[in-house]
Amino acid sequence: MEFFKDIPVIKYEGACSTNPLSFKHYDAEKEIGGKKMKDHLKFALSYWHTMCGDGKDMFGVGTMDKSFGGADEMEVYKNKVYAAFEIMDKLGIEYFCFHDRDIAPEGKTLGECNANLDVIVPIIKECMAKYNKKLLWGTANCFNHPRYVHGASTSCNADVFAYAAGQIKKAIDITIELGGTGYVFWGGREGYETLLNTDMALEQDNMARLMHMAVDYGRSKGFTGDFYVEPKPKEPTKHQYDFDAATVIGFLKKYGLDKDFKLNIEANHATLAGHTFQHELCVARINGAFGSIDANQGDMLLGWDTDQFPTNVYETALCMLEVIKAGGFTNGGLNFDAKARRASQTGEDIFHSYIAGMDAFALGLKIAYKIIEDGTVDKFVADRYSSYKTGIGAEIVNGTATLESLAEYALKMGDVDVKSSGRQEYLENVINSIMFRGL
Amino acid sequence: MEFFKDIPVIKYEGACSTNPLSFKHYDAEKEIGGKKMKDHLKFALSYWHTMCGDGKDMFGVGTMDKSFGGADEMEVYKNKVYAAFEIMDKLGIEYFCFHDRDIAPEGKTLGECNANLDVIVPIIKECMAKYNKKLLWGTANCFNHPRYVHGASTSCNADVFAYAAGQIKKAIDITIELGGTGYVFWGGREGYETLLNTDMALEQDNMARLMHMAVDYGRSKGFTGDFYVEPKPKEPTKHQYDFDAATVIGFLKKYGLDKDFKLNIEANHATLAGHTFQHELCVARINGAFGSIDANQGDMLLGWDTDQFPTNVYETALCMLEVIKAGGFTNGGLNFDAKARRASQTGEDIFHSYIAGMDAFALGLKIAYKIIEDGTVDKFVADRYSSYKTGIGAEIVNGTATLESLAEYALKMGDVDVKSSGRQEYLENVINSIMFRGL
Amino acid sequence: MEFFKDIPVIKYEGACSTNPLSFKHYDAEKEIGGKKMKDHLKFALSYWHTMCGDGKDMFGVGTMDKSFGGADEMEVYKNKVYAAFEIMDKLGIEYFCFHDRDIAPEGKTLGECNANLDVIVPIIKECMAKYNKKLLWGTANCFNHPRYVHGASTSCNADVFAYAAGQIKKAIDITIELGGTGYVFWGGREGYETLLNTDMALEQDNMARLMHMAVDYGRSKGFTGDFYVEPKPKEPTKHQYDFDAATVIGFLKKYGLDKDFKLNIEANHATLAGHTFQHELCVARINGAFGSIDANQGDMLLGWDTDQFPTNVYETALCMLEVIKAGGFTNGGLNFDAKARRASQTGEDIFHSYIAGMDAFALGLKIAYKIIEDGTVDKFVADRYSSYKTGIGAEIVNGTATLESLAEYALKMGDVDVKSSGRQEYLENVINSIMFRGL
Amino acid sequence: MEFFKDIPVIKYEGACSTNPLSFKHYDAEKEIGGKKMKDHLKFALSYWHTMCGDGKDMFGVGTMDKSFGGADEMEVYKNKVYAAFEIMDKLGIEYFCFHDRDIAPEGKTLGECNANLDVIVPIIKECMAKYNKKLLWGTANCFNHPRYVHGASTSCNADVFAYAAGQIKKAIDITIELGGTGYVFWGGREGYETLLNTDMALEQDNMARLMHMAVDYGRSKGFTGDFYVEPKPKEPTKHQYDFDAATVIGFLKKYGLDKDFKLNIEANHATLAGHTFQHELCVARINGAFGSIDANQGDMLLGWDTDQFPTNVYETALCMLEVIKAGGFTNGGLNFDAKARRASQTGEDIFHSYIAGMDAFALGLKIAYKIIEDGTVDKFVADRYSSYKTGIGAEIVNGTATLESLAEYALKMGDVDVKSSGRQEYLENVINSIMFRGL
Repeated sequence: MEFFKDIPVIKYEGACSTNPLSFKHYDAEKEIGGKKMKDHLKFALSYWHTMCGDGKDMFGVGTMDKSFGGADEMEVYKNKVYAAFEIMDKLGIEYFCFHDRDIAPEGKTLGECNANLDVIVPIIKECMAKYNKKLLWGTANCFNHPRYVHGASTSCNADVFAYAAGQIKKAIDITIELGGTGYVFWGGREGYETLLNTDMALEQDNMARLMHMAVDYGRSKGFTGDFYVEPKPKEPTKHQYDFDAATVIGFLKKYGLDKDFKLNIEANHATLAGHTFQHELCVARINGAFGSIDANQGDMLLGWDTDQFPTNVYETALCMLEVIKAGGFTNGGLNFDAKARRASQTGEDIFHSYIAGMDAFALGLKIAYKIIEDGTVDKFVADRYSSYKTGIGAEIVNGTATLESLAEYALKMGDVDVKSSGRQEYLENVINSIMFRGL
Repeated sequence: MEFFKDIPVIKYEGACSTNPLSFKHYDAEKEIGGKKMKDHLKFALSYWHTMCGDGKDMFGVGTMDKSFGGADEMEVYKNKVYAAFEIMDKLGIEYFCFHDRDIAPEGKTLGECNANLDVIVPIIKECMAKYNKKLLWGTANCFNHPRYVHGASTSCNADVFAYAAGQIKKAIDITIELGGTGYVFWGGREGYETLLNTDMALEQDNMARLMHMAVDYGRSKGFTGDFYVEPKPKEPTKHQYDFDAATVIGFLKKYGLDKDFKLNIEANHATLAGHTFQHELCVARINGAFGSIDANQGDMLLGWDTDQFPTNVYETALCMLEVIKAGGFTNGGLNFDAKARRASQTGEDIFHSYIAGMDAFALGLKIAYKIIEDGTVDKFVADRYSSYKTGIGAEIVNGTATLESLAEYALKMGDVDVKSSGRQEYLENVINSIMFRGL
Repeated sequence: MEFFKDIPVIKYEGACSTNPLSFKHYDAEKEIGGKKMKDHLKFALSYWHTMCGDGKDMFGVGTMDKSFGGADEMEVYKNKVYAAFEIMDKLGIEYFCFHDRDIAPEGKTLGECNANLDVIVPIIKECMAKYNKKLLWGTANCFNHPRYVHGASTSCNADVFAYAAGQIKKAIDITIELGGTGYVFWGGREGYETLLNTDMALEQDNMARLMHMAVDYGRSKGFTGDFYVEPKPKEPTKHQYDFDAATVIGFLKKYGLDKDFKLNIEANHATLAGHTFQHELCVARINGAFGSIDANQGDMLLGWDTDQFPTNVYETALCMLEVIKAGGFTNGGLNFDAKARRASQTGEDIFHSYIAGMDAFALGLKIAYKIIEDGTVDKFVADRYSSYKTGIGAEIVNGTATLESLAEYALKMGDVDVKSSGRQEYLENVINSIMFRGL
Repeated sequence: MEFFKDIPVIKYEGACSTNPLSFKHYDAEKEIGGKKMKDHLKFALSYWHTMCGDGKDMFGVGTMDKSFGGADEMEVYKNKVYAAFEIMDKLGIEYFCFHDRDIAPEGKTLGECNANLDVIVPIIKECMAKYNKKLLWGTANCFNHPRYVHGASTSCNADVFAYAAGQIKKAIDITIELGGTGYVFWGGREGYETLLNTDMALEQDNMARLMHMAVDYGRSKGFTGDFYVEPKPKEPTKHQYDFDAATVIGFLKKYGLDKDFKLNIEANHATLAGHTFQHELCVARINGAFGSIDANQGDMLLGWDTDQFPTNVYETALCMLEVIKAGGFTNGGLNFDAKARRASQTGEDIFHSYIAGMDAFALGLKIAYKIIEDGTVDKFVADRYSSYKTGIGAEIVNGTATLESLAEYALKMGDVDVKSSGRQEYLENVINSIMFRGL
């Protein structure tokens, strides 16, 4: 069954095309910097938003029918699989990501949930083979059900912790079964609503305990991929413990989890935490924790996670610049954790949304490479810090300087030349010049 | 005397140039849509930031020397004039804007202030003639001096109100003398720090009183230009009465000032108020209040007025789209109310900054025209509301429908088709397609 | 049937009580300033949050069962009525507020919806008589259903406008039938998601058209109460046209609606717009537009409408100070537009929440009166502006001063004394002193 | 010489006093919980705001004369010392904190700066003895001078790093000389303006290098007090590396600095980072990093560091609750890093401000003890997590549970009881009940 009959396979038609259902910039097989665009970008479909999201918000019910013609619950979930692979196929997306409860319905007990998964997972596996698609990462939804009202591993109720553990075990099993190269912990409700009722120390210890158990189990089952934490500062809870990249890196180090865990950076979560997307990627990179990306964009004037499809080419270019500096993706990839707006309620909008996001990232990739090839920015930065290469600067860096030796040096110095400009406006203009060069 | 000896006249060299001291996109004399780029854009230099701003912030003293080699205070201010016109000349900027205290130093009394102005204004006039430059608008700085600690027209002290009136009278005189086509009221400290000590009703009445006096005086002296209010929501005060475009429009209407006043919209003030720049321009336009623009950009993650040079081409394109829809500038223009960063402390940075801003707006103008010529967006909007052209929609618009007639109609309707998508992602992609078409 | 068997009638037990199910400060019949506390505060129950809100959020399904044992849909809605009046009765709340779709279920057609309402409204009326309760205001929910995805009166689809009109007609009918003294327009989805697809001018004109129709209809049916607009800046839409009090007041004036409409000020909407609750109340008051209050509180670190029960006594005190200055409520009252947290999922939490809110407002009322009786703050403000009572200040206020006369005065003045302090810290300490006097 | 002749010694007069120049709640010698109020609170005067802050902001020059009648620069700084001790004496404040450049003027060279300090420090020492006052902590101002435009230890210029090292050496010397128990690193300009010109990895490594040098030097000179980092997320730079408590704790651990460094938590910095003051204190506490407090409050609707005197008793109570839980202050204390508003420009306002802050914290202390004595909140929290004391919960905590054992347990469980409410509204009401008990 074809679910999107009016939608053709989306092809690259070049930057002059005016066909809405084509790529203007994403040319999957085209090489750039010695690697195909599709291997640079490793696009993934997010199963939750794309196959399950119905457009509901806090002031309105859903506007989108995501039952895909299923007559009963299990058929709905089977059809989701077929529709998902049709979408991936038509868009030329090679990877997907899922939560356990996206792919099979919640049962009354954990056993029932697992049984539902056992029906669907083989269908997914079959489609993966048929369409030559891969699993980027899996995860467990430990936040939607009322039992998780107080969190999962940070719940005040030990039974809830146990239930979450059971759910995560199964999600890891499936991830391994489907050949996934990553397993994600997203904070869900791991945080607090009010400090008045919260034992933050116990909750954070417990959070680390579950992560250790998951690593122990996964490794024992031969999982060699990456575990990821996805930082987010708030929403649904008032405070999420995985606030931002720096917080999570500190947490992983404190609890000895930094060898197994990397970060899955989400653009919209970055801005909710008061950071740029590029900042979070850079923090991850310089701490050796760069793993994967949840691509989307927020609205900078709104205080919640809008998860919009990314279309701002400045953002995608600076993102890809960081990805390239980090050596590109290994186990990770670029998952569109994005949803069509509530008012973009048709099936066609799914395709418009992905095309918009994929073309924006293709442009970003191309511009990032132009920035690198142009070399102006990198040279500027290298020159700017050159004083640490020799003399007193080198002594600082190599550890031979002391507070006293530097004080002595400084007392002889007179004052310091402060004429070296940071040249922010010049550099911003360089970026624009490169982006629009030749236009 | 040449102040910026290393800086040549900045020329248009085309989109492939890599010369930092050239325009890649701003080609002043080039026609687009039947009008020269310079007449579309009407760029203005802001005297305060450019000639007086020294880079100080709340945690550090100034980093820039803006004395221009002057040996005493009056020579400093004379040299500022010469330097300003050199900058405008080298950049090909045709207009400038000033506060009274930018162009001549504060004296001990209002008389002394006025005397200082009487020395400098003729020099400016002479330079205007020599370089063929024009005054976009003038204004009075009624916020910097300690006397304005509680506001100017909203001060709790009637003597302060009187002093401000005297200062504004002189600023209007100078604006007329220099042929300015606009006079701006910027809120300064017209607002409050705490409601605990504030009589908001009296303060707002007084604010309107001073504006009426200014209009009466200006018109009596033959000023036919526009008066402007520049909305800003906060800073320096906790709450500024001119919060945003909608607030100011309501205020002007309430006090009968809407015939003489239009708005001077600032990009960074828009975002501080929780709006996009485009939103504020649109609100001004549809209320017939679009006047002039203070061009800059803020940092969306920072909560204060950063007044950065605008380099985001999305923003400049959407801005120019609104300007074109508003019929273009008449008395107004595009004043760069922007300052080089504190760490961009050299003279050369002034030029890099303006080049960055001017090229970003030139690109914005070109893209705005492409969006209009392409027609996709406008057609989409027209089609979207077509139901108001006929039938029940026309009855609603032409006033023949009543709540009862509509209820009757609705009762017969069954339900409404809700399949018409808002197509946000598609439209965002159309904008990207147009921006990067042919790249 | 008693729905909350474990909950007794909540009684005033005084400020030393440690009984959680008692009022410590709200003593309904106690007179303060010549009026009973209950008549000062005019507390109302919000039907939507209290009777219908199930605790779902964007990351989780509902946690609260609000079916009240109903076996089918209509019985659920009938039982909601009985439960609502039990809650009001046990809490001593005299008023309630509703949306049409809170009290009766959505039908497949407008006719079906109205038929459902016709079943429930008589039951409500009966309970009102039995328990001696009153309707503060009614409204129509024109935002939840998919048909309203693009707005109601601002929808791009004229049929949707018509449907909304039909729905509002019925809601007004019911409001009149139940003796309500107010009818509220809450912006719902009257706003936009992206300017790229929006005709703001048409949308705002249409919004005003529907409001005029509603007034015409309501007045024709003998409704003499107030129409209200409730300002909100964003959420669900990116921009809501009823941004804040100043925006709405300007809108009402522009479209000639200011005679019939007042404002219903919500605390959390105020802070989302960048204002304090007190600010919005003050703006409404000085423009003669103060009407009613939606009492709640937001979390100042979260960017969405959290609608928490108000417990901050600073906020409630400053609110009641404004209410008293406005002359107290006439047609309006204090509606708790607040919901128990998702994790406060038991029936008992409803009572804890209301008790918390009612006691916080009772404290606020008492403190507001103490501030007025103490007189320090009012005297400070009066003294602060005394210069406008005589001399040049009086000339400014009475309109005899001109820009020229003031300039002449200012030229003679020398400088202004700037030693008069705003005394913010002193005044904040006065408030604390009064709040905790005698503790 | 007496600088504040109209200001008497401020005495405790009790909660019914209406004398503005008295304490209503701060009774220094009164014991609470077995310790004097003054020893609980350890109030400190901030030398910079109080003795040097002149009220200037980004839109206005200073309004306050802080020259204290000094005829030349060194006399000004000498008089600042005498005035500071008069203020401390009259207010009964036992501690103070300083930056090097607060207490003696900047010289043309580091040598000159040091010489200026050598003149003033003995005078301070003498006053300390005379008035029996102590130094809480010292620090170096490495952000105000243009040389620090790109940062101090994170400057791109090695000479600037060296200069900062020299300055910090001297500041540590003085701190030791004056018997200070703490030395603070405040981020100043340690951060970036744009990632386009920044090598974040090198900058953070260098930041850690300077901190190590400082520790090595301080310990070698016998300093046994605490080193502190004071988190702040932004301002003056776009991003400050010491973003918040969690970030700094991670940084200290990464670079092996966590044994010598604790945190100095500032209230206003907490909220700028998106956290409550209580949150930051709690994070510090549970990580063993609680050190000292910079007490003030921000305006939650403003996006910059307003550094207002703290008057919100909710905030002070929750702060003191965390302090008590952390075991109280050891080397740290409560420094008022707060400034009177620009419009509170008189000498008297200094006293009103401190009285407001000290009384607010005295109330906070009393309420915190009442919350502890009442016990309701602590018992609620202990009960809430009791499931981790026995059974499966104990196995989770003691490390015997595994993912597999928990999955097995969960499969047997059925579902989890989710009826346990978080009771946020109840707990908030408990706090109000305690705060206003008996009123």
